Amino acid sequence: MTDRLISADKVEGTTVYNRTGDKLGSINNVMIDKTSGKVAYADMSFGGFLGIGDRHHPLPWSMLTYDTDKGGYVVNLDKKTLEGAPTYGEKERVNWEDEAWGRKVHDYYGVPPFWM
Amino acid sequence: MTDRLISADKVEGTTVYNRTGDKLGSINNVMIDKTSGKVAYADMSFGGFLGIGDRHHPLPWSMLTYDTDKGGYVVNLDKKTLEGAPTYGEKERVNWEDEAWGRKVHDYYGVPPFWM
Repeated sequence: MTDRLISADKVEGTTVYNRTGDKLGSINNVMIDKTSGKVAYADMSFGGFLGIGDRHHPLPWSMLTYDTDKGGYVVNLDKKTLEGAPTYGEKERVNWEDEAWGRKVHDYYGVPPFWM
Repeated sequence: MTDRLISADKVEGTTVYNRTGDKLGSINNVMIDKTSGKVAYADMSFGGFLGIGDRHHPLPWSMLTYDTDKGGYVVNLDKKTLEGAPTYGEKERVNWEDEAWGRKVHDYYGVPPFWM
């Protein structure tokens, strides 16, 4: 049985897999667009053990599909694509007001931005 | 400066006030509609010290306005209205699939349901 709603609490900590079943990372946090009330990004990181460091990967929410068998999200991404993706560091401050940044993320992944 | 986006982490724990500045409760959790990616409810509780027990009050997201001066959300509700509102207990399982339940909440507060 799947619920229509999920709590942000439960999204956090959920593993993200690619289509071939490799673990890509896990969700740290959910970023909400205050105006529209839509989830803009799920913020994924690797946990620091893959050598790419602990950078934050904002994944547009629309990219994530929950797989009940795996108990995690599946995204249509390979590690190579992920390595070139827009990220930010733990102490970096991202200007989310700046649509150019958001556009960069969405263009990279080829999905429409959350504000559209 | 206010950011366009807010993390669910930061919403959780934020105090909710009414328009006259009384503290009503605080946000426990953010409920996301998986299909639309919209925040459906902010789940508020009182912390159990108001005698109404620790029941969960799902507040439609559209009702909340962030007040930077107060450092919390303001809703146009008085305590009386809140006491009659649809709630659920800690161990109760709410069937969020059931639109009748969601409709009850939205009708009570007079705001359009999250799925519209």
